[in-house]
Amino acid sequence: MTDTVISSASREVVIGFDQPFVVIGERINPTGRKLLAEEMKAGDFSRVEADAMAQVAAGAQVLDVNAGIPLADEPALMARAVKLVQSLTDVPLSIDSSVLEALESGLAAYQGKALLNSVTGEEDRLERVLPLVKKHGAAVVAICNDDTGISTDIDVRFEVAKKIVQRAADYGIPACDVVVDPLVMPVGAMADAGVQVFKLIRRLREELKVNTTCGASNVSFGLPHRHGLNPTFLAMAIGAGMTSAITNPLEAPLMQAVRGADVLMDHDPQCANWISAYRQPSAAGTRERRSTRRRRPEAG
Amino acid sequence: MTDTVISSASREVVIGFDQPFVVIGERINPTGRKLLAEEMKAGDFSRVEADAMAQVAAGAQVLDVNAGIPLADEPALMARAVKLVQSLTDVPLSIDSSVLEALESGLAAYQGKALLNSVTGEEDRLERVLPLVKKHGAAVVAICNDDTGISTDIDVRFEVAKKIVQRAADYGIPACDVVVDPLVMPVGAMADAGVQVFKLIRRLREELKVNTTCGASNVSFGLPHRHGLNPTFLAMAIGAGMTSAITNPLEAPLMQAVRGADVLMDHDPQCANWISAYRQPSAAGTRERRSTRRRRPEAG
Repeated sequence: MTDTVISSASREVVIGFDQPFVVIGERINPTGRKLLAEEMKAGDFSRVEADAMAQVAAGAQVLDVNAGIPLADEPALMARAVKLVQSLTDVPLSIDSSVLEALESGLAAYQGKALLNSVTGEEDRLERVLPLVKKHGAAVVAICNDDTGISTDIDVRFEVAKKIVQRAADYGIPACDVVVDPLVMPVGAMADAGVQVFKLIRRLREELKVNTTCGASNVSFGLPHRHGLNPTFLAMAIGAGMTSAITNPLEAPLMQAVRGADVLMDHDPQCANWISAYRQPSAAGTRERRSTRRRRPEAG
Repeated sequence: MTDTVISSASREVVIGFDQPFVVIGERINPTGRKLLAEEMKAGDFSRVEADAMAQVAAGAQVLDVNAGIPLADEPALMARAVKLVQSLTDVPLSIDSSVLEALESGLAAYQGKALLNSVTGEEDRLERVLPLVKKHGAAVVAICNDDTGISTDIDVRFEVAKKIVQRAADYGIPACDVVVDPLVMPVGAMADAGVQVFKLIRRLREELKVNTTCGASNVSFGLPHRHGLNPTFLAMAIGAGMTSAITNPLEAPLMQAVRGADVLMDHDPQCANWISAYRQPSAAGTRERRSTRRRRPEAG
């Protein structure tokens, strides 16, 4: 029973084997969002505000914050985004960058115990990121690739995860603060990507006893009707033991699959969350949108 | 790798560990359908025709046929329904009754190798149904209750399944012709019903090496927005190893979950079935309805 506890100044969220599934909202990320990137670079963070509030209203328990914009001062943008989002909402944040200085800057600006996204099994990354994790008492997402790249062999990916957990321990970071991303491959390109990742999730849980997360939408890359496939993937991944995902809570079918899986995993006592979300199913979407709209003026 | 092969006069369907999930259409069943019951009793089988064609068009690979109407001549109605449905479509049938004479009559009228629905672990039922299964060379659905009722303990339900498989073997029926229904309880009444049945499905597959089926919608009984929970259950059950279900193929989200789970279990080569169903997702529902309408006049 592994619990990864992360927090803001005033709220704790537990990613754990016996906990409701944790949705980490992925929207605050300028990668592939040209308008958001331009606005953030120009100092306009209104869309970051709106994305933060909308994702929390839709059910995200954690928000991922990424400020990766080419030719911009990413560490400064990260610090500003972290402070802004923490002023709007009390959910814990995942501080997400491939740039070490942006991770540092985000952690310095952050109040609470953050989830740092991410470390890999690459030597250089291990040596630079893990001391940061230890220094700030954060938790960390560990991605199952190393200096040899991403293996299609799940045994190799399992060994990379094991190595990261061991190296984290060398730095005094407990295994419960390492949330492993098994790496989800597109099933359209690799036919057994689903079966294999379900096996890997199960092994990570049963043998390495770590929590897991993933970018859930990658599985459907290249296929038609991706929004129809992603919720089914998420449900099956939760059934295999996955405990969190970085995904888009504004997609209602995804959140429905997560809430349903919580019920079916016996992680929603008295089905209270399900009943509260779907007592009047036709109105559920409307209510969510309305509450988001009401909150925006307070936030702005 | 267990394969249960059933057939009509001209088509085989395989329920198996390495096969696409088999949807057994549940609609031809007057239980709880007052209008259908009245019509069938009065000799009007037009709705049976329409239900058969619509379910096949929507993707059912097998059709369940039940003629259980109070105070009606169920064996005669069953024979007529079986003959009619076999004249309209070449999918194999599941002959479904709690009345032995209706099972006999349905089997006598049937062309091919039917799925007989069902036997239980009750002594009387074992002694009366298994000889029928053997005589007609059918496969059989084995429900995990016995003379003591339905146990909430999955170890007890597993033992009932094991007993039925052993008793079937005594009659010369191989385990591959026994498709076990683990019995899905409502999660609203029994909080761990989901977790428990996933465990049982996995044990039935790994230890008893049998195919499985279930009435998938029972899980959501008593909860709001049942149509939103059932597809998630089905996806997770398939992930746990379930190989068929008796359910309603006319519910598009259910079929979407089944097709998605086939992709993710690597049971849809080149994702061909998924791509064909959802290449134009907005039109998919329309196409299905249209093709059903086109076929009805041919059927009538």
